[in-house]
Amino acid sequence: MNVELVTIGNELLLGFTLDSNGAHLARELAAIGVSIVRRTSVGDEATAIAAVVREALDRTGAVITTGGLGPTSDDLTKPSVAAVFGRSMRLDEGILEALRQRWISRGWGTELPAANTQQAMIPDGASILVNRHGSAPGIWLEDERARWVAMLPGVPREMRGMFADELLPKLRERLGASATAVVVSRTVRTTGISESLLADTLKPVESALAGLSLAFLPGWAGVDLRLTSRGRSAGESAARLDSAAAVLRTAIGSSVYGAETDDLVRAVLERLRTAGMTLVVAESCTGGLLGSRITAIPGSSHFFLGGVIAYSNEVKATHLGVGDNTLIKHGAVSEATAREMASGVRARYRADLAVSITGVAGPDGGTPEKPVGTVCVAVDLRGVLTSARRQLIGDREEVRLRSTQWALDMVRQALDRDLSS
Amino acid sequence: MNVELVTIGNELLLGFTLDSNGAHLARELAAIGVSIVRRTSVGDEATAIAAVVREALDRTGAVITTGGLGPTSDDLTKPSVAAVFGRSMRLDEGILEALRQRWISRGWGTELPAANTQQAMIPDGASILVNRHGSAPGIWLEDERARWVAMLPGVPREMRGMFADELLPKLRERLGASATAVVVSRTVRTTGISESLLADTLKPVESALAGLSLAFLPGWAGVDLRLTSRGRSAGESAARLDSAAAVLRTAIGSSVYGAETDDLVRAVLERLRTAGMTLVVAESCTGGLLGSRITAIPGSSHFFLGGVIAYSNEVKATHLGVGDNTLIKHGAVSEATAREMASGVRARYRADLAVSITGVAGPDGGTPEKPVGTVCVAVDLRGVLTSARRQLIGDREEVRLRSTQWALDMVRQALDRDLSS
Repeated sequence: MNVELVTIGNELLLGFTLDSNGAHLARELAAIGVSIVRRTSVGDEATAIAAVVREALDRTGAVITTGGLGPTSDDLTKPSVAAVFGRSMRLDEGILEALRQRWISRGWGTELPAANTQQAMIPDGASILVNRHGSAPGIWLEDERARWVAMLPGVPREMRGMFADELLPKLRERLGASATAVVVSRTVRTTGISESLLADTLKPVESALAGLSLAFLPGWAGVDLRLTSRGRSAGESAARLDSAAAVLRTAIGSSVYGAETDDLVRAVLERLRTAGMTLVVAESCTGGLLGSRITAIPGSSHFFLGGVIAYSNEVKATHLGVGDNTLIKHGAVSEATAREMASGVRARYRADLAVSITGVAGPDGGTPEKPVGTVCVAVDLRGVLTSARRQLIGDREEVRLRSTQWALDMVRQALDRDLSS
Repeated sequence: MNVELVTIGNELLLGFTLDSNGAHLARELAAIGVSIVRRTSVGDEATAIAAVVREALDRTGAVITTGGLGPTSDDLTKPSVAAVFGRSMRLDEGILEALRQRWISRGWGTELPAANTQQAMIPDGASILVNRHGSAPGIWLEDERARWVAMLPGVPREMRGMFADELLPKLRERLGASATAVVVSRTVRTTGISESLLADTLKPVESALAGLSLAFLPGWAGVDLRLTSRGRSAGESAARLDSAAAVLRTAIGSSVYGAETDDLVRAVLERLRTAGMTLVVAESCTGGLLGSRITAIPGSSHFFLGGVIAYSNEVKATHLGVGDNTLIKHGAVSEATAREMASGVRARYRADLAVSITGVAGPDGGTPEKPVGTVCVAVDLRGVLTSARRQLIGDREEVRLRSTQWALDMVRQALDRDLSS
């Protein structure tokens, strides 16, 4: 089955919003063997929406739209698509009552704002895609030739929920037995090795990847390698991808930290579980970003106790015990300071393991000796200290993200050394 | 001038990557009056790339591509587009030498990996768009009918740098005097008020917005209101937008916290500067996310000292002085605990102002009395305590983001009360 995606909203054409909906749908559809043959973005104009949907219907016969279902005057998807199908709009009392109940139960007031009434209007002959995650209902509209448009909301959380609850089961049913020859991917995640060095490392094993495509996807977290298999049965794809992924992992070695969407945080949490250890952090230039990444994972509270955001030097001295001499002689951005930060937070917060980050994230604050991107990381594992200094690339945001990734990698390596000794 | 965007990479069709490049280019181009008439995503296949670029050239005559310029075997943009123009590829010795120097100067080794050589191949008759932010050079290719394709790298930081350095000046020059009737937008940012309530609030002032379009953009940070003016001179657009934005601000009142891409953090930092105060944080469920958001802003170190990530109850007790009785009687997620966290971190870290967050971010840990999304925030401004409890919506990530936004809003309001008294 081929599908076109139409994402609706001036904000997409003007570039004010990232189209995360398109990416999510592409991923989910690929998994059931549905190919996206075109993605189009169009603004909040009734005629433009109708034109794009009509063209997509004529080409492909199956269209998913996102956006333009809200309560405000720029939300025009339903009447525009109704016009393409030659249907009129009617008020659905059931939807209106559900909206009213939702408003009251949230404690937002006793009366539904007039603007919400628009959300209860639906095209004649449409089926409703129930929204359990927000107020705007979705719509499924189909003509006598089985051509269809599914309209989903633009708010990502609502769109994802509605897709999973309502649209995905509907599409699976339509596909039936044809959902066999699918597109399947495996991702091998690496960190601390450059894209071109990876490419050279993998040259000798390229023959093991025959019939699969291999994509290199660099980013602040490292370089992801994605293997893709097309047009085979699910079983054959899985077998080929598994053996190819194993070949990549062997060739690359310890720079591989995970697979698929694995976060390096999860790799660290797994090792903490195995080692039975607790972790704390001391963050200067990252200001809490490392703690934030760790606690983004549910269940991290079993191993992560917390730590100190030591943005000022006074906090480093008073609450981590970094010596005044260290700060004066080596500076706040130094391995010496990083080591005292790690040891200080580990002792005070009574943890098995501590990691610290101090650096120059930019754009200001660089010097010839310590240019922007200079970062020091230290790990203290029950008194065993390791530290290093690196020159990271990118802007402030990227330097900070790369710093947290590198710090997590240092923790992973320290745990691996400890677990294997 | 109309332009089409073609973003290249399997990862875009399969949904593994968010297309931030498209959004950035759309925004930058709109500012010089260039309209994006279509956005297409295509995979890493030479024939597919050539087909899409050929169609776009035939339709619009001006195409910007991103992606597919890297050193690995899936990077096919240059030869594919060369084929569309009927040009062959040649090795550019200047680019090769620059790549070699860059490799050596970064300390990555003495020999350039063979994979990088591919980056030095360019189509006959092409101009080079210099890359000051990475290794892959960009390409400008034009035919005798002045139809052109500009090829930019896919790595967002490199793409943005090259666009600003090389392509933008080139396009400005082409546009000349025609860059007058432009698309201009103003954004008014609100937080703590629902989209439909905003719509009702603005109904009475709609007439003041005649001739402008108004978009409601809800997200975890609040609802952004975007006013857009099309087809007027830059001066007329600015005057209309300014007066319309002023009307919105007056109608909405204190829920407005900024304009354009203002971060609520900046609004808080501005007030801290005015008040001459310092800020610290104590974070439980957000685990450093608030500190991370604050320190994402360069210069925040003048007002932000740091704080405590108090993920475990023991850290709350030992390092913030939250009473055991408080934790037992009210629980870790309570206004009482939030208040003691704020006061505790303020006293220990010697700051004027402290803000604390404790809550149930989910997906587990909810109870009937404190379901997932229950969050308590407290602010201590020189001993004056305020606190509140709210039920926030969304998944773990969204609850955490909404928590930091709400905490910053509490700080903003406390500072406004203090500054006006």
